[in-house]
Amino acid sequence: MTKKKYTEIAELGEFGLIDHLTKNIKIKNESTLKGVGDDAAVLDYKDKQVVVSTDLLLEGIHFDLTYTPLKHLGYKAVVVNLSDIYAMNAEPKQITVSVGLSSKMSVEAVDEFYEGVYLACERYDVDLVGGDTSSSLTGFAISVTAVGEGEKDSITYRSGAGVNDLICVSGDFGAAYMGLQLLEREKKIFQSNPEVQPDLATHDYLLERILKPEARREVTELLRKIGIKPTSMIDVSDGISSEMLHICKESNVGCRLYEEKIPIDATTAMLAEEMGINPLVAALNGGEDYELLFTIKQEDYEKFTGADGGINIYAIGHITEESKGAYLVTSSGQEVKLTAQGWKHG
Amino acid sequence: MTKKKYTEIAELGEFGLIDHLTKNIKIKNESTLKGVGDDAAVLDYKDKQVVVSTDLLLEGIHFDLTYTPLKHLGYKAVVVNLSDIYAMNAEPKQITVSVGLSSKMSVEAVDEFYEGVYLACERYDVDLVGGDTSSSLTGFAISVTAVGEGEKDSITYRSGAGVNDLICVSGDFGAAYMGLQLLEREKKIFQSNPEVQPDLATHDYLLERILKPEARREVTELLRKIGIKPTSMIDVSDGISSEMLHICKESNVGCRLYEEKIPIDATTAMLAEEMGINPLVAALNGGEDYELLFTIKQEDYEKFTGADGGINIYAIGHITEESKGAYLVTSSGQEVKLTAQGWKHG
Repeated sequence: MTKKKYTEIAELGEFGLIDHLTKNIKIKNESTLKGVGDDAAVLDYKDKQVVVSTDLLLEGIHFDLTYTPLKHLGYKAVVVNLSDIYAMNAEPKQITVSVGLSSKMSVEAVDEFYEGVYLACERYDVDLVGGDTSSSLTGFAISVTAVGEGEKDSITYRSGAGVNDLICVSGDFGAAYMGLQLLEREKKIFQSNPEVQPDLATHDYLLERILKPEARREVTELLRKIGIKPTSMIDVSDGISSEMLHICKESNVGCRLYEEKIPIDATTAMLAEEMGINPLVAALNGGEDYELLFTIKQEDYEKFTGADGGINIYAIGHITEESKGAYLVTSSGQEVKLTAQGWKHG
Repeated sequence: MTKKKYTEIAELGEFGLIDHLTKNIKIKNESTLKGVGDDAAVLDYKDKQVVVSTDLLLEGIHFDLTYTPLKHLGYKAVVVNLSDIYAMNAEPKQITVSVGLSSKMSVEAVDEFYEGVYLACERYDVDLVGGDTSSSLTGFAISVTAVGEGEKDSITYRSGAGVNDLICVSGDFGAAYMGLQLLEREKKIFQSNPEVQPDLATHDYLLERILKPEARREVTELLRKIGIKPTSMIDVSDGISSEMLHICKESNVGCRLYEEKIPIDATTAMLAEEMGINPLVAALNGGEDYELLFTIKQEDYEKFTGADGGINIYAIGHITEESKGAYLVTSSGQEVKLTAQGWKHG
């Protein structure tokens, strides 16, 4: 076994580290006039509107470094912010990344994290234009802000859903949540008996969903291509229930979701049953799926026919008047009230 | 003594807390189309360019809650970001504020912090348009992103300084650094003998400079009013030396600063001598002054005459060719090489 290289961050110093981390940046977007290297980035969006979203990720709350590869973490930190920009039906163009580095992190560890950041920049065509680097006395702290652009008439809010609109989602749900349960289970087993190797085989999909999620750029591209402007849209970070309630609240409407329409991958369902978790609860309240939840006019639905290019879009319910409330209709026909949860991380 | 009210954050929950903190927001700027309450904020800058800056502040590194009132901290967290926008010769219009709340923080404590945030928004006419709220396992973490606008021809970079340009600064230097030394000294005395009351009287100015700094909006307004576009500009967060070296590097020039021209307040100098610190070192390497350091064409200097409206602007040196290096000329005529330091917080 070769020993991994360990360079103290102090060897480079703050400015040296920033130079080291940013020296290979190549600007991709015309709207990026000035990136890293001044007091602020300068962007030019001409007649487009500007969309801004931000997230703070803290060690022990949002991620556990015992099972999260740093490269994946860098990738995910970017992707979860881009997801918010796509949820506005806009296109991300720039990000800033600030990090508070714990004393146990080497330059090599920081490099791994930034490899993931740059990989996400590459994959989603965004420019890293700024940030802040400091030490942290406690854990690793990451703050990402994403900036994007949208046409005035395309930007989609949570507030536009109308009665009888169809409620659609991309992808499937509960997989990231089950991936997290799996990692937590194996961590406990490892802690009580370090000789046992983790049993992660055959769960690639679930692990990828929690450790290296993607933002649904292709979904917004598809919607544009087939000429659908959603009446409302949100990304699913806290589970379908919570996000659906946001749309209902902002649009002053109610909804009916149908249990049998909620897309759940077979591997999600299998592991959930093995672990005694209701797969539906994982899908509705699990979170971290980063799929898109949106509403469309009924007449738009047929535009998806034959046009999806491998992108799975599912109609899972419809919008009702506000007075009818927000409910899930179970397979047996019962109506169960949707409830929101926050702070479920960690 | 009345007991302070203590409400657990869990009583409100994440979404309840966000509602509580944002319910009184009134949007002030035309460019803010959508603030808090969707996946992202939506801004419209029309033909202006967009300027973005971000900072991450961590408990124990950037601030010490044993002597930092939360309201001041909220104010400062915003101001230090606005300072970066002014340093681009631009105007801040929106901010996002993300917080990781430690478990010992009550709703009342969070309210105090946000009182400071809103006070800064009021004072600088910026809108709070987004953010993120989570718990923190470790300390209080704060991330602020500021967005502003500038005319294409006004935005000022670090890279435009030319040979023979005058180097100017606003305000005075080293006061925040001495304020910090004072707080640290009194903290140590208090820790070894809690009966002793802190000796902070007569040091109001120094304490205000460290605990509740201001961004130099009036300076950029003055420059606009009298028709000066600086050739380069930066805000002084890490001390004059470090910032001057940034300008030299980005502009490919050298400089001469003159010891006797560096503005240092009398109270700064007095406390420095009392504590055995060279006041010049405090001014050059101390940091956190949040004054502006900028270069102008020589012929522009006379425009300041009679126009300053109480704003102190000092010429402290001039730009040279790069080959001449970056030096401070002492009162005795010696040349001392400027050196940069980073990560001096805490």
